[in-house]
Amino acid sequence: MAGNSFGKLFTLTGFGESHGEAVGGVIDGCPAGLLLDVQAIQAELNRRRPGQSKIATPRNEADKVEILSGVFEGVTTGMPIAFVVRNENQKSKDYSNIKSTYRPSHADYTWSTKYGIRDYRGGGRSSAREHIARVVGGAVAKQILATYGISITAYTTQIGSVVWNDNGLVPLFEKIEQSIVRCPDSEKSDEMVAIIEQVRGECDSVGGVVKCVVQGVPVGLGEPVFDRCQALLAHAMLSINAAKGFEYGMGFGAAAMRGSEHNDAFVVKDGIVGTETNRSGGIQGGVTNGEDIYFRVAFKPVATIAREQKSVDSDGNAILFTAHGRHDPCVVPRAVPVVEAMTAMVLVDLLLQTKANKL
Amino acid sequence: MAGNSFGKLFTLTGFGESHGEAVGGVIDGCPAGLLLDVQAIQAELNRRRPGQSKIATPRNEADKVEILSGVFEGVTTGMPIAFVVRNENQKSKDYSNIKSTYRPSHADYTWSTKYGIRDYRGGGRSSAREHIARVVGGAVAKQILATYGISITAYTTQIGSVVWNDNGLVPLFEKIEQSIVRCPDSEKSDEMVAIIEQVRGECDSVGGVVKCVVQGVPVGLGEPVFDRCQALLAHAMLSINAAKGFEYGMGFGAAAMRGSEHNDAFVVKDGIVGTETNRSGGIQGGVTNGEDIYFRVAFKPVATIAREQKSVDSDGNAILFTAHGRHDPCVVPRAVPVVEAMTAMVLVDLLLQTKANKL
Amino acid sequence: MAGNSFGKLFTLTGFGESHGEAVGGVIDGCPAGLLLDVQAIQAELNRRRPGQSKIATPRNEADKVEILSGVFEGVTTGMPIAFVVRNENQKSKDYSNIKSTYRPSHADYTWSTKYGIRDYRGGGRSSAREHIARVVGGAVAKQILATYGISITAYTTQIGSVVWNDNGLVPLFEKIEQSIVRCPDSEKSDEMVAIIEQVRGECDSVGGVVKCVVQGVPVGLGEPVFDRCQALLAHAMLSINAAKGFEYGMGFGAAAMRGSEHNDAFVVKDGIVGTETNRSGGIQGGVTNGEDIYFRVAFKPVATIAREQKSVDSDGNAILFTAHGRHDPCVVPRAVPVVEAMTAMVLVDLLLQTKANKL
Amino acid sequence: MAGNSFGKLFTLTGFGESHGEAVGGVIDGCPAGLLLDVQAIQAELNRRRPGQSKIATPRNEADKVEILSGVFEGVTTGMPIAFVVRNENQKSKDYSNIKSTYRPSHADYTWSTKYGIRDYRGGGRSSAREHIARVVGGAVAKQILATYGISITAYTTQIGSVVWNDNGLVPLFEKIEQSIVRCPDSEKSDEMVAIIEQVRGECDSVGGVVKCVVQGVPVGLGEPVFDRCQALLAHAMLSINAAKGFEYGMGFGAAAMRGSEHNDAFVVKDGIVGTETNRSGGIQGGVTNGEDIYFRVAFKPVATIAREQKSVDSDGNAILFTAHGRHDPCVVPRAVPVVEAMTAMVLVDLLLQTKANKL
Repeated sequence: MAGNSFGKLFTLTGFGESHGEAVGGVIDGCPAGLLLDVQAIQAELNRRRPGQSKIATPRNEADKVEILSGVFEGVTTGMPIAFVVRNENQKSKDYSNIKSTYRPSHADYTWSTKYGIRDYRGGGRSSAREHIARVVGGAVAKQILATYGISITAYTTQIGSVVWNDNGLVPLFEKIEQSIVRCPDSEKSDEMVAIIEQVRGECDSVGGVVKCVVQGVPVGLGEPVFDRCQALLAHAMLSINAAKGFEYGMGFGAAAMRGSEHNDAFVVKDGIVGTETNRSGGIQGGVTNGEDIYFRVAFKPVATIAREQKSVDSDGNAILFTAHGRHDPCVVPRAVPVVEAMTAMVLVDLLLQTKANKL
Repeated sequence: MAGNSFGKLFTLTGFGESHGEAVGGVIDGCPAGLLLDVQAIQAELNRRRPGQSKIATPRNEADKVEILSGVFEGVTTGMPIAFVVRNENQKSKDYSNIKSTYRPSHADYTWSTKYGIRDYRGGGRSSAREHIARVVGGAVAKQILATYGISITAYTTQIGSVVWNDNGLVPLFEKIEQSIVRCPDSEKSDEMVAIIEQVRGECDSVGGVVKCVVQGVPVGLGEPVFDRCQALLAHAMLSINAAKGFEYGMGFGAAAMRGSEHNDAFVVKDGIVGTETNRSGGIQGGVTNGEDIYFRVAFKPVATIAREQKSVDSDGNAILFTAHGRHDPCVVPRAVPVVEAMTAMVLVDLLLQTKANKL
Repeated sequence: MAGNSFGKLFTLTGFGESHGEAVGGVIDGCPAGLLLDVQAIQAELNRRRPGQSKIATPRNEADKVEILSGVFEGVTTGMPIAFVVRNENQKSKDYSNIKSTYRPSHADYTWSTKYGIRDYRGGGRSSAREHIARVVGGAVAKQILATYGISITAYTTQIGSVVWNDNGLVPLFEKIEQSIVRCPDSEKSDEMVAIIEQVRGECDSVGGVVKCVVQGVPVGLGEPVFDRCQALLAHAMLSINAAKGFEYGMGFGAAAMRGSEHNDAFVVKDGIVGTETNRSGGIQGGVTNGEDIYFRVAFKPVATIAREQKSVDSDGNAILFTAHGRHDPCVVPRAVPVVEAMTAMVLVDLLLQTKANKL
Repeated sequence: MAGNSFGKLFTLTGFGESHGEAVGGVIDGCPAGLLLDVQAIQAELNRRRPGQSKIATPRNEADKVEILSGVFEGVTTGMPIAFVVRNENQKSKDYSNIKSTYRPSHADYTWSTKYGIRDYRGGGRSSAREHIARVVGGAVAKQILATYGISITAYTTQIGSVVWNDNGLVPLFEKIEQSIVRCPDSEKSDEMVAIIEQVRGECDSVGGVVKCVVQGVPVGLGEPVFDRCQALLAHAMLSINAAKGFEYGMGFGAAAMRGSEHNDAFVVKDGIVGTETNRSGGIQGGVTNGEDIYFRVAFKPVATIAREQKSVDSDGNAILFTAHGRHDPCVVPRAVPVVEAMTAMVLVDLLLQTKANKL
């Protein structure tokens, strides 16, 4: 498989460019018999779509999903589920100013060199607009997980220098969604919004961190030794545009710890083996232990800023480049549903693999 | 493929348990015509093997590799390269004290539950001894990379609270190997050794961080959108025992940065497009840009400590468990060659994929 | 990957049901830089579409392909090429008579039992209408092969008891297409048409054989030991609806031969090693030898016949079933472009793999 | 994955050359908890090994299998099962006469050209000796299938011009094994032996056909649309050395049939849906229907004959080549266990996939 498919048994194959006809994908391996809630899929897309709030890019597209196959009388048939989201804005823009420019810290130079051709319209497929396919794939995966009582909650814990500490408590979905930055703490949320507005005012952008927690996880997900649960999650997260780091459990903090501080004692809770603490992040030996999985993903500041920057054009001439138009000064809030979606696909894939490897 | 294979075109399939007959693997997809340096493979294994220094586990095995196939008259034939390393100590030990104990923060509980059976001898395949196969696979991969002028250098930058800053300079291999903790700064190295000896004295263990730099990287490695170079590296690193986090370029630090601080300006260097700074970590849009790749991997403290800990046995009874025998109080120094090996396999795989996708 | 993807490096993922919204697919791994001839793709679809001639099913759909991604300014970008063909007739029919009937020798019973749900509209995805995706994938693959001078020619050599012997000469495309059964010999073609009309008159159907020849093949395609060229071709051919057998070179006839009769002597032709005869069918040791590849595919008679047949309904009651409507009494002529398409995808995949496995 | 792995969830990765150190493989994805009968594995190897009878090659090797991993206290652990069979004869021979000769209808020319290097010792990995790994993989798979009541029986139905018709009755294993050509009919067996002795006397070789029947198959195995059961079987069979054709059910005979003759009426047998006849070969719509699977595989005559043949050497000079030593004049009897082994691996893989794709 080339690089546009993700997953072994529950596989998403994505397609589409930012300003082409459509973006979409094909989900193969979705078990038959799932009563598919298409509105729930659309709701996830709405969480990701541009133009949701005053801090997001004003590109306002409905991002309406159309399901083309794999569902009959509302129920999945076991056949591939294909879907498309038409691009509405694709012909409206003039790209002549970036056509031959390698925008700093964008994919323009690397993709042009790799493929020998460049779809310069809005970054082509290197645009985060391809995340739409992931969100749809993840929305289907979430519906499967729900039948197992597994739920995924992601939220913003850092924007720039503003950090929120969740104290190990999983916030309510409603609280998260009330915040336009998806930080459930209203005070910190306000600070984060302020920072985003400030950097926008300064024609700049800012990074952040998303935390994700999975609850209701059964024991046994993960396929050692290479497809450990955390390895697949890391793969999934680092495949998201602008992601720069992944850590689970104590993460980088574990480096400074002693074993006696880090180990999770086993105890029996309600007749079931569990751990007293959960520094392991719900995964031991690459396999889930029944405790919550939790991890953090770092995102860099958006590369597109409305400031003059040094660059080079495709003929190798030094140039000065200033981005036009208005862009998201911070991708983090809209990355939250993408983190959830990728997590959901990893877990469904592992669930299906776990079923397979039984006598 | 089940979980014991890694890579699409250059594929390592590993096998073996800590105290079974042997550990080993099969490399499929190694191009024909490589004059294979078996001594160089053995040298990499020697870097990983136990009993190298006063701070490592005294399990002293030669870890001698035997190549079974795929090489004729010293040259690779394009056929699978199988290799085995016999376990010498496999019958020497009494495991009755851990047979029915779920050791805290080990794989005992999760694997037992997942597979319904447990090879309790030294952790079975959950032991880091399976890394031997990775090191051999990586050693072959490094020889391929060398023909392209690509080299990989990993080293320890943190043990417990002792942190060394490389100031962005890649240390010499000799400097790294002179240090028994693989930190090229002799002063910091001494501090790290002191910490390890201290925690051992306290029947405890300690974590750390490995940094890895790849030099001589061509433009174009990485397969968007899911198999971005960093996504495969993250997958590879988080598949290593005890790894808890991965970050590349500015990593988690990028979250607090502004776009104007983080972006790398394009410049022309010696007639070739490059970047003035390298905060991107050598990868843009998921594809290498010709600058050095660099990333960091966090490792937790070793779970095995010679202290009494609360746990549960396989019948669900609360017990107190104290590990016997002597173990590495810190895996980080021996993880360095494993990080390099996994990196090498990722890059060879991407190199081969890059060749494939041409008209 | 689940079962709706084909190929390792040049991968087609198909989707869609006979009477759903659309059928289509995503091609991932198509190299960048191919000037894509969309009319040529449409022309291939036209060869497969229903209602082409008096002997084919009168379902008359335009089967117009729409490309959604992966092509910019007419050239492939290296990104996934998604395409859809809308179903026009999907709401026009009444399926109440087959809804709960297991039609003999159809997929109704096996798919219902496997998936627990049945899209009974025209057989759902078990319909040969999914071949549309294969034809598009193959049409793109053919354009890649053309740049290497590789061409594929398939034709009908048997319908029922009428057998045509090509005497080892590859017929001209025009000759093949002049025949509505795709047999280039006009006399035999007439006989084949007569048989088809006869069986239709008798409310019956008939099988046949397609032969395929590949010319201009380079030495070296095939990935031993499991992905031998002939193994991938066999996989591809037996994945086509109604295919019952595959043989290459002397095929089943080789069973009765002596080695001295079957072996192909090596000779030097125009300074290049070749074989004096080509009983091997262009493949030796699983790898192409530069001679023409040729093979034959057997197709069973269409299962849908307008005669009363014994069957069982989904409640397990014995019933009598008579198919309504008019159907192709013979799939063979329309299978010809599908055989070519699958062949093209196998060869492109092997071509790309061959490029990859070089130092 | 490169070409030396077979299967998605139950994966065999084979390695080894005819005259290298060893042949062997790694089975990944074998479910945990199987009480592995190693003697049964050895018994299958004994069926394939050379020197079994007066008609087989006198190369007499014990072909003793050693299991290196994945089994603990006699039970599979879910971890990869690695195994090796040491080559005993590997240093005993002089290959100077074939070193630079392209033997007619062997892999010498194609592999040399593809890989740029040739392990000329007994054909290297192109030798049928690699089938050892398949037989071991298949022997493990058979033990899994046995727990489901699925059994596989293959036998010889043709050697040269001698054809045996089984009249649709599955012969007893004992009857098959009593025949040194593995044809259960003693009269036809004698005729087949006579033909083999005759061609050997004439320094020639002869081809044949193996039929395989699978009994006790559940409904539901096969992954449409590309991984239909018959497509995977065809792939498996055509990956065997010397195989030239595959057909299932009525096979090529179906081409001449009418639908009314070919269709299998559904009936209820003992409360279960079945078919009155089984012309479909146990597979409909690519998925097993609970009836016996049956198929036939054609094998060409062995290429190695002790006669002078025209050929070319690696410098492109026309030469005359005569094979020395003694070789099997017919591979068919020893191919029987290989056909069974490949069938077993396909079915286990599909069984595991069937488990996976459930909610």
